[in-house]
Amino acid sequence: MGRVRVDLNISLDGYASTTDQTPEDPFGRDWGRLTAAYAGTRTFRERVLGQPGKGTTGLDDEYAAAYFEGIGAEVMGAGMFGLHEHPNDPEWQGWWGPNPPFGVPVFVLTHEERPSLEMEGGTVFHFVQSSLEDAVAAARKAAGDLDVRVGGGVTTARAALAAGLVDRLHVAIAPILLGRGQNLWADLREFEQGYEVRSEVAPSGTIHVTFSR
Amino acid sequence: MGRVRVDLNISLDGYASTTDQTPEDPFGRDWGRLTAAYAGTRTFRERVLGQPGKGTTGLDDEYAAAYFEGIGAEVMGAGMFGLHEHPNDPEWQGWWGPNPPFGVPVFVLTHEERPSLEMEGGTVFHFVQSSLEDAVAAARKAAGDLDVRVGGGVTTARAALAAGLVDRLHVAIAPILLGRGQNLWADLREFEQGYEVRSEVAPSGTIHVTFSR
Repeated sequence: MGRVRVDLNISLDGYASTTDQTPEDPFGRDWGRLTAAYAGTRTFRERVLGQPGKGTTGLDDEYAAAYFEGIGAEVMGAGMFGLHEHPNDPEWQGWWGPNPPFGVPVFVLTHEERPSLEMEGGTVFHFVQSSLEDAVAAARKAAGDLDVRVGGGVTTARAALAAGLVDRLHVAIAPILLGRGQNLWADLREFEQGYEVRSEVAPSGTIHVTFSR
Repeated sequence: MGRVRVDLNISLDGYASTTDQTPEDPFGRDWGRLTAAYAGTRTFRERVLGQPGKGTTGLDDEYAAAYFEGIGAEVMGAGMFGLHEHPNDPEWQGWWGPNPPFGVPVFVLTHEERPSLEMEGGTVFHFVQSSLEDAVAAARKAAGDLDVRVGGGVTTARAALAAGLVDRLHVAIAPILLGRGQNLWADLREFEQGYEVRSEVAPSGTIHVTFSR
């Protein structure tokens, strides 16, 4: 049976989302600073940007590669799929175009009833109206022996952590203080209990902390 | 001219104080977990507990030793000296007995007017009624070429960080989530700007992060 995994980029003060988006800079400067080490890796540049052979190798890249390995299904919140910006729009198919980078069944939590969407490259979006627990159970079944990734957003990831659904949490901590946004650690007192915690620092300054059980 | 330094033990979610004290357990279980690696070092056991030759060596101990090195004066808040529990009590001389472990002039911020207290071993408590800036300036003058430590509590340390008074911040991050208490990182957005940040992980699992300028 596979594990349920969460991977997030957070700031040293725990923020996993940023607040300085503008129409001119839709990601914002903070997002760039938060994800700089990950976005610079060879894995990210090859798998997400389609730039093979470029980018950093080493510890940051090892974690980036692990993020993509062994995933058999994904769970995400409605916001990550874009249903907050595009509610009740039957034409909306997510942010990722016709060939999303998942390549596996993706279970989207939403109050909307929507038919499943079969995309190119193996991604099939299923829409789950009941509970996070049900979505994770459906994803586990779909993943078989492979792992399930709870991809985001932060609220969904934190709910999965708080509910004890997650077997492996990896955070890549950028050594910056954002001071605002959604804090991953809110209401997770003693989450570490029952997990083995391992930390290591990459040459980029990113602190990788992994909770495993 | 010496530097102004802050050293704190914090949890992974940024808490530098704990909330589970009881009459039976006046420090609380969380405090023990937060400071376990530091309290286990050879330096702590020798300098604070008077147990020479015992305790861990290695990275945690190197930071513990550095905490005590090169300090010419200390600044602390009224709470750390005990004036919240012992207000307007001319007999109160702090928590540390006749021979406090500072051995240098200590500048205590308080609204109370109190005469300076000369203790054994070189510690002299001075009471500053004006501002944190004034207390740090007086401590810098007293320290000469040595460093000033802003010892605590968390509110005083954070105020010094926010005011740009601190040249070196070292946090020893225990890989635990406390979820409540006083959060060091509150209102310190972009504190890292202008500092060099260095992180390393001790075998104990403690993540040492140092901001220097």
